[in-house]
Amino acid sequence: MEWINGGITAPEGFRAAGIGCGIKFDKPDLAVVVSDRDALCAGCFTRNKVKAAPVRVCKDHLSKTNICRAFIVSSGIANACTGEQGIENARRMASLTAEQLGVKTENVMVCSTGRIGTQLPLDKIAKGIVTVVGSASKDGAHDAAVAIMTTDVVPKEASCSTIINGSKITFGGMVKGAGMIAPDMATMLAFITTDAAVEPVFLQTVLRECVDKTFNSITVDGDTSTNDTVLMMANGVAGNPVITAGSEGAEMFRQALQGVCYSLAEQIVRDGEGATKLIQVTVTGAVDNASARKASHCVANSLLLKVAFSGPDANWGRIMAALGRAGIEVDPDKIDVFIGDVPMVARGVEIAGNKNDARQVWKQQTFVITVDLHLGPGKDTCLTCDISHAYIDINL
Amino acid sequence: MEWINGGITAPEGFRAAGIGCGIKFDKPDLAVVVSDRDALCAGCFTRNKVKAAPVRVCKDHLSKTNICRAFIVSSGIANACTGEQGIENARRMASLTAEQLGVKTENVMVCSTGRIGTQLPLDKIAKGIVTVVGSASKDGAHDAAVAIMTTDVVPKEASCSTIINGSKITFGGMVKGAGMIAPDMATMLAFITTDAAVEPVFLQTVLRECVDKTFNSITVDGDTSTNDTVLMMANGVAGNPVITAGSEGAEMFRQALQGVCYSLAEQIVRDGEGATKLIQVTVTGAVDNASARKASHCVANSLLLKVAFSGPDANWGRIMAALGRAGIEVDPDKIDVFIGDVPMVARGVEIAGNKNDARQVWKQQTFVITVDLHLGPGKDTCLTCDISHAYIDINL
Repeated sequence: MEWINGGITAPEGFRAAGIGCGIKFDKPDLAVVVSDRDALCAGCFTRNKVKAAPVRVCKDHLSKTNICRAFIVSSGIANACTGEQGIENARRMASLTAEQLGVKTENVMVCSTGRIGTQLPLDKIAKGIVTVVGSASKDGAHDAAVAIMTTDVVPKEASCSTIINGSKITFGGMVKGAGMIAPDMATMLAFITTDAAVEPVFLQTVLRECVDKTFNSITVDGDTSTNDTVLMMANGVAGNPVITAGSEGAEMFRQALQGVCYSLAEQIVRDGEGATKLIQVTVTGAVDNASARKASHCVANSLLLKVAFSGPDANWGRIMAALGRAGIEVDPDKIDVFIGDVPMVARGVEIAGNKNDARQVWKQQTFVITVDLHLGPGKDTCLTCDISHAYIDINL
Repeated sequence: MEWINGGITAPEGFRAAGIGCGIKFDKPDLAVVVSDRDALCAGCFTRNKVKAAPVRVCKDHLSKTNICRAFIVSSGIANACTGEQGIENARRMASLTAEQLGVKTENVMVCSTGRIGTQLPLDKIAKGIVTVVGSASKDGAHDAAVAIMTTDVVPKEASCSTIINGSKITFGGMVKGAGMIAPDMATMLAFITTDAAVEPVFLQTVLRECVDKTFNSITVDGDTSTNDTVLMMANGVAGNPVITAGSEGAEMFRQALQGVCYSLAEQIVRDGEGATKLIQVTVTGAVDNASARKASHCVANSLLLKVAFSGPDANWGRIMAALGRAGIEVDPDKIDVFIGDVPMVARGVEIAGNKNDARQVWKQQTFVITVDLHLGPGKDTCLTCDISHAYIDINL
């Protein structure tokens, strides 16, 4: 697998564009990703029970067909908690895009991100759809990545190529994140493309697996949103033998897709609202993987700890307190904690003399916290960031 | 029931003192509460699996006897994650206090609050215990309340009297809170006294009930701590007929105790680290009380919402998002939300024209958010506060 340039249009047969249509005052706010031929579609959606209108419409479309020709995405307004009018507006975004492309409404997936509770300005969006679909091109990936941003500081893209059974397969992706980020994907929209030919059930399964290990293993603030969506199109333009579960190329496909998802997920955390640091929390020695996951996420979500990440002290006490309330089996007197490579806590007690070394690690922009519970084989990793004054300013 | 002055020594037969013994640089850090005669003791402790040494020692003492003569409390260092030495130090605090009073070690309960992972300076504390026990008096309640503070801005006390079966019964209390406050009591120490004569099992049961409705229904930052403790002494000096479960005075006793606990709990939230506002979140119409509790706590704990409390907008979208991820049954299209008395959301959609009225309520220092899920009889209330820049400065 090789990282390449090109973003969401890096694979063959995809075009994209991003424009400003007037939802936001003065910024790009409407993006489209088009597949030149029918593509298989797979998706993962928020588990928040308050689901935004576009999430409901996407799920409806996927229940009718797994063939997709385009993603249409607006930013600035989430189209969540908007009642029947909101559903109508989301459907209309899809049907207007379908019209421009000469395809069926259910062949278009629709996403929105931004403020909850406001209705979309559909007249502006309708005009925008004509423009954005008309201008979609191989060169439009970056513009699209910019147009889906809300409080994101930087656009987020990734793309890679790999050879599977002699065919060159390419993946492209873009994502928006920033705040309301927690397991179950939160206010994030991720779009992934590939020119591989893939069996549909395998595509959905492998996407779910990759999402669990990447987008569902990050946290910014523990809040989860109404609009989370990961959508993928696989258009088969690469002409490879169809990749199926258990086939020779399946594992390579999974690894490449997971690589793209991980890159995008990490970019979200790095660009967490006001974040200045990226911290990996790894828990080993839990009784099982599910316990390790609860522990890593509880540590990664601790507000007190996330504030401490911005400060000077390697505040391991807050790690211990988070482990104790994670709702899993722990024996405090068996816990080891490492800050980077520095052993900080052995069997639940601070190791004398290592405080300064730990403090040096803690100052770095990126570091790893490792916890060994010494109870079993369970292991999990979660990415998190610090919470700084800027987080408050952004969310006031 | 009538609120009175006097704090923890308001009931007959109690003395207290607070001094500085040198744990902190220049502030009071050691408090004692003494009962002049044997008192019944009841306690509730953190459910965090990483339990501080004093919590373990208190539980050990309570397993041996329910008779108590004193609480000895230090602030500045939590004596948590301190291994065998920590246990030894906590026991020593109890035994030194017991020695001064001429009672058994297990008749003294010991608490500490402050930073995790550091060992207590026992030489300083030993000298301090002689001084603090020697100076305990009826007038020492306020000094004791000051000496248990850490990042608390103000000391927190409450006391009340009530007539039960012709006897005047008095309650006194003091508490420390501020950060790491969430259900299951967090970094809070609460001490309550009464001169009532009470049956022991009833005392423990009614204390647990009152704790659930008060200290376990508040949140500052969702973090829970290693040291949470609520301890109560009932010394029977009032000379009333012993209050038992189901007896005539039982309900009055419960109400007065709950009143004191509620007052102290509310004071904790008002003094939440950096907090400028007190918000009550009430959820009605849940399928049952347990669901309502999950919902009220999920809303009260939402970091995004707590940041929004400091801002100008009545950001009801974040309330809806929190309800959707609370892990309970909700139908978004049935949810009503009130900001104060202003109906803001009806059946999941914003009520047009009420935004400015809601904004006026949102500006107030204290207001109530009410959610009606329209699904059943379940109801719960949780108190919370805003998260401001000061929270970050305090916890860096």
